[in-house]
Amino acid sequence: MNKLDATSLYNIHRSIKHFIHKTPLITCDTFSKITETKNLYFKCENFQKTGSFKLRGATYALQTYITRALRMNQPIDNLEIITHSSGNHASALSYAGNLFGVKIRVVMPNNGPSAKREAVRTYGGEITFCEPTQQARELTTELIMAKKPMQLVHSSDNYLIIGGQTTVAYEIFKEIGDLDYILTPLGGGGLLAGTCLSALHFSPRTKVIGVEPALANDAYLSFKSGAIHPPLPPLTIADGLRIGVGVRNFEIMQKHLHDIITVDEEEIMRATFLIWERMKIVVEPSSATTLAALIKYRKMFRKKNVALVLSGGNVDLRNLPFSRDLIEL
Amino acid sequence: MNKLDATSLYNIHRSIKHFIHKTPLITCDTFSKITETKNLYFKCENFQKTGSFKLRGATYALQTYITRALRMNQPIDNLEIITHSSGNHASALSYAGNLFGVKIRVVMPNNGPSAKREAVRTYGGEITFCEPTQQARELTTELIMAKKPMQLVHSSDNYLIIGGQTTVAYEIFKEIGDLDYILTPLGGGGLLAGTCLSALHFSPRTKVIGVEPALANDAYLSFKSGAIHPPLPPLTIADGLRIGVGVRNFEIMQKHLHDIITVDEEEIMRATFLIWERMKIVVEPSSATTLAALIKYRKMFRKKNVALVLSGGNVDLRNLPFSRDLIEL
Repeated sequence: MNKLDATSLYNIHRSIKHFIHKTPLITCDTFSKITETKNLYFKCENFQKTGSFKLRGATYALQTYITRALRMNQPIDNLEIITHSSGNHASALSYAGNLFGVKIRVVMPNNGPSAKREAVRTYGGEITFCEPTQQARELTTELIMAKKPMQLVHSSDNYLIIGGQTTVAYEIFKEIGDLDYILTPLGGGGLLAGTCLSALHFSPRTKVIGVEPALANDAYLSFKSGAIHPPLPPLTIADGLRIGVGVRNFEIMQKHLHDIITVDEEEIMRATFLIWERMKIVVEPSSATTLAALIKYRKMFRKKNVALVLSGGNVDLRNLPFSRDLIEL
Repeated sequence: MNKLDATSLYNIHRSIKHFIHKTPLITCDTFSKITETKNLYFKCENFQKTGSFKLRGATYALQTYITRALRMNQPIDNLEIITHSSGNHASALSYAGNLFGVKIRVVMPNNGPSAKREAVRTYGGEITFCEPTQQARELTTELIMAKKPMQLVHSSDNYLIIGGQTTVAYEIFKEIGDLDYILTPLGGGGLLAGTCLSALHFSPRTKVIGVEPALANDAYLSFKSGAIHPPLPPLTIADGLRIGVGVRNFEIMQKHLHDIITVDEEEIMRATFLIWERMKIVVEPSSATTLAALIKYRKMFRKKNVALVLSGGNVDLRNLPFSRDLIEL
């Protein structure tokens, strides 16, 4: 394992910061009032380049593989990267690959949002589609790698990716010194494990909470039982959180995570709608899980300083899921 | 006429600034590249309280009427304000009325976005619906005022409203010293006339351009002919720009406006879609007219410093107009 100590985290941020946006940390009177938090902050990774925080991990991973290749006197033209991803990691890796001149191969489920597919193509990533199960993703990836050796960069279960994602919370802690809670969406656990490590080193009193769709609560079941639960069928509307929790991520979560909250599909959709309507920003359902959790358990967060990570904003605008019967606030 | 000189404009901003958001002025690499502008800024009035710049004029107008009443020893409980508005001015005035304790009566067309109606109701404004023509709006208002005298606050053709709207450009010029162009949407001309006055006093070398939907180009026809053209049927999707240009607004535009650009419905929808998709922010079609104009006449703005005003973000999210056949960028 890479040592992810305070110095490493500082260096990771220094290494990627010129390639990413320092996204804004914003407030919203409406939601502060409703939830009666003391201070409520939203870290807007939907404004990140490529539309999600995934660019942070992807950039750091590619930088590291390129540096390794150069140290071994290998031309980076030979470097080929493969990943399987529901979308955001795929487009982030494609974007970074395009920037650094590294070829990216992506295995994607055939039912993801078309906006995410188009983004991968725009950035020059080469797509192979597969059935929308974790098994199919892994098998398709292995078959491609069997034909030609490539470097696999898992979307979450990879220390370089986790290292890159630590920079989200690092930026938050640099701005806000006295956070009581930080909530992040939880899919594979890259963002959440990174946030745990950042809190450990830069804001030890901040409690880190992961938010998972109840329909994809494998990490919740794993966290409560102490053993990794297999991933669930990919049914949640929060398409970025369908993947199962990673081994490395789970290990970090077991040591440093305060708790996991689950939210149901209606709570996710309602929170998504509210963020669009009140904050006038475009977020994907995965992002809105954090606000859904805050609203659901608002008593717990009363008079506290809370930061929510809005992880991304890539949705198919032509096919929005807002129905007429969403419960009003 | 109120003297809208540099000192007045400064004082207007000082007077309302604690009641409004200083909205962010943001950049977007994608659109800078496409348009080859030197620097491109978006003034995000969609993030303004009540979701549009209209709160600026409404706040300043109410503050002035309240001050006048107090000076004449009249209790402000007797003060009653009426307006007719397609929506954003109505909700802004209702919000400000609620804040300052002044009763607001609103005449609204019966075909506006439901989100705007709900906002007026939330802030305690009393709505009277009318047919969606300018004539019906004015007649309905006069009928109400005939029964009970009230102070009419027109959404654009009013020097207090124009004065309040000067603060949008005032904030831009305080941040950016060397703008070549500033583009604002053009409906009644409150924002545009205010922008002309701000440029005159604080950034005289900046050329101010109004952008009008081709389907509602009465101000364009007026500007070119030198005489006010009657308003056109309210057909454009940019519902905030359906109203005809105001007399006071037109007078200021004739003296200080550089030019008017018109954009067609497809250009407006495409620009709206692009802002949502690429910038991840929610804007209403009226806002996107400025980007539509920039893209349409990009040669004119090449290598220039340009600011676009995004005037508001109030749309009916359950009924979005994004069709599958929007032309790709």
